Amino acid sequence: MKLTDKPVTAFLDELASNAPAPGGGSVAALSGALGAALVSMVCNLTLGKKAYAEVADDIQGLLAQSEALRQEMTDLLDEDVKAYTGYSIAAKMPRGTDEEKAKRDKVMQAALKTATDVPLSIADAAVRIMDLCMPAAEKGNKWAVSDAGVAVLAAEAALRSAALNVLINLGSLKDDEFVADRRTRLENLLEGKGTMRDEIYDYVVKKL
Amino acid sequence: MKLTDKPVTAFLDELASNAPAPGGGSVAALSGALGAALVSMVCNLTLGKKAYAEVADDIQGLLAQSEALRQEMTDLLDEDVKAYTGYSIAAKMPRGTDEEKAKRDKVMQAALKTATDVPLSIADAAVRIMDLCMPAAEKGNKWAVSDAGVAVLAAEAALRSAALNVLINLGSLKDDEFVADRRTRLENLLEGKGTMRDEIYDYVVKKL
Repeated sequence: MKLTDKPVTAFLDELASNAPAPGGGSVAALSGALGAALVSMVCNLTLGKKAYAEVADDIQGLLAQSEALRQEMTDLLDEDVKAYTGYSIAAKMPRGTDEEKAKRDKVMQAALKTATDVPLSIADAAVRIMDLCMPAAEKGNKWAVSDAGVAVLAAEAALRSAALNVLINLGSLKDDEFVADRRTRLENLLEGKGTMRDEIYDYVVKKL
Repeated sequence: MKLTDKPVTAFLDELASNAPAPGGGSVAALSGALGAALVSMVCNLTLGKKAYAEVADDIQGLLAQSEALRQEMTDLLDEDVKAYTGYSIAAKMPRGTDEEKAKRDKVMQAALKTATDVPLSIADAAVRIMDLCMPAAEKGNKWAVSDAGVAVLAAEAALRSAALNVLINLGSLKDDEFVADRRTRLENLLEGKGTMRDEIYDYVVKKL
């Protein structure tokens, strides 16, 4: 059974346990999915309302993007669990002889690369969700403006949470070129996003 | 069926829909529960390990608190849905005559007070979860330090998300004394927490 098919309380129980997965990476993806779902909610509370007929096309466009991102984040949640499980299995490989050690090391480095690229994809999707929050706050149903604010808080938490999971794996990787490339990509994704969160939050607070 | 007993994907579907609840308040509570569960995970990955025998008592104390807070947040999630549903029912009361209008107004004001106090309780619990994150990062298993970082990101997002839900309801309340009191309480809860989040995040990044 996929983790996302389990009840919310069971997800929380597994998270709290000492099982290798789910962990922080899964929370990053779930937080992103919650942010995307909230943007969708704002859109769904806006469409079909007479007062918002003029922005219906824009809102429809936002909704298509938020729903695609919600699916992407949900898929990434399950991918993160798979990636982490792959790493845990690799870590348990025998390392008695030099040959075994070399084999284990090779498999672990490959598993670490996957375990880096999944949260990097989560970070990338989180930024795309953040991009939808200001338009949702500005154009969406004014009674749902606080939900657009919660959406950006969830998406930015997803971004930073994913960043921590990228960084912890980069620390154990030996391929310098890969490490430098992924570090640059992550820095580009993070840049200015704390400020963006504050700006959207402040915009929403002023509307309340 | 309680919302927290539903599968994660069903929770996300209901969130994305135009149904009145769940909304941003429920996401605040879930985000808090995720933060608490991550603190528990760090503790559970630390207890029983020889290298951390000296801090076992401290970690056991942290775990007791994080598990109590996880339960508190899960309960608040269901309470938030109930409070919002109560408000929605009140809003649909007839208001044809002056008498009906007065009755509806009274029920709505009471419902709004509950819908304010539930997210205020979420904010309060979120702050208590944030307080556990630095000890978890400092004393817990070093391989789980990124999870302590994700915990503080989730808890602070819970705090701010709850704040938006308190503020939106205060805006429609007519009891000035109640409004002033809850506003002060909220400001006290928010004070310095953005800085606290940054400090714990930076501490964790340095350890990666």
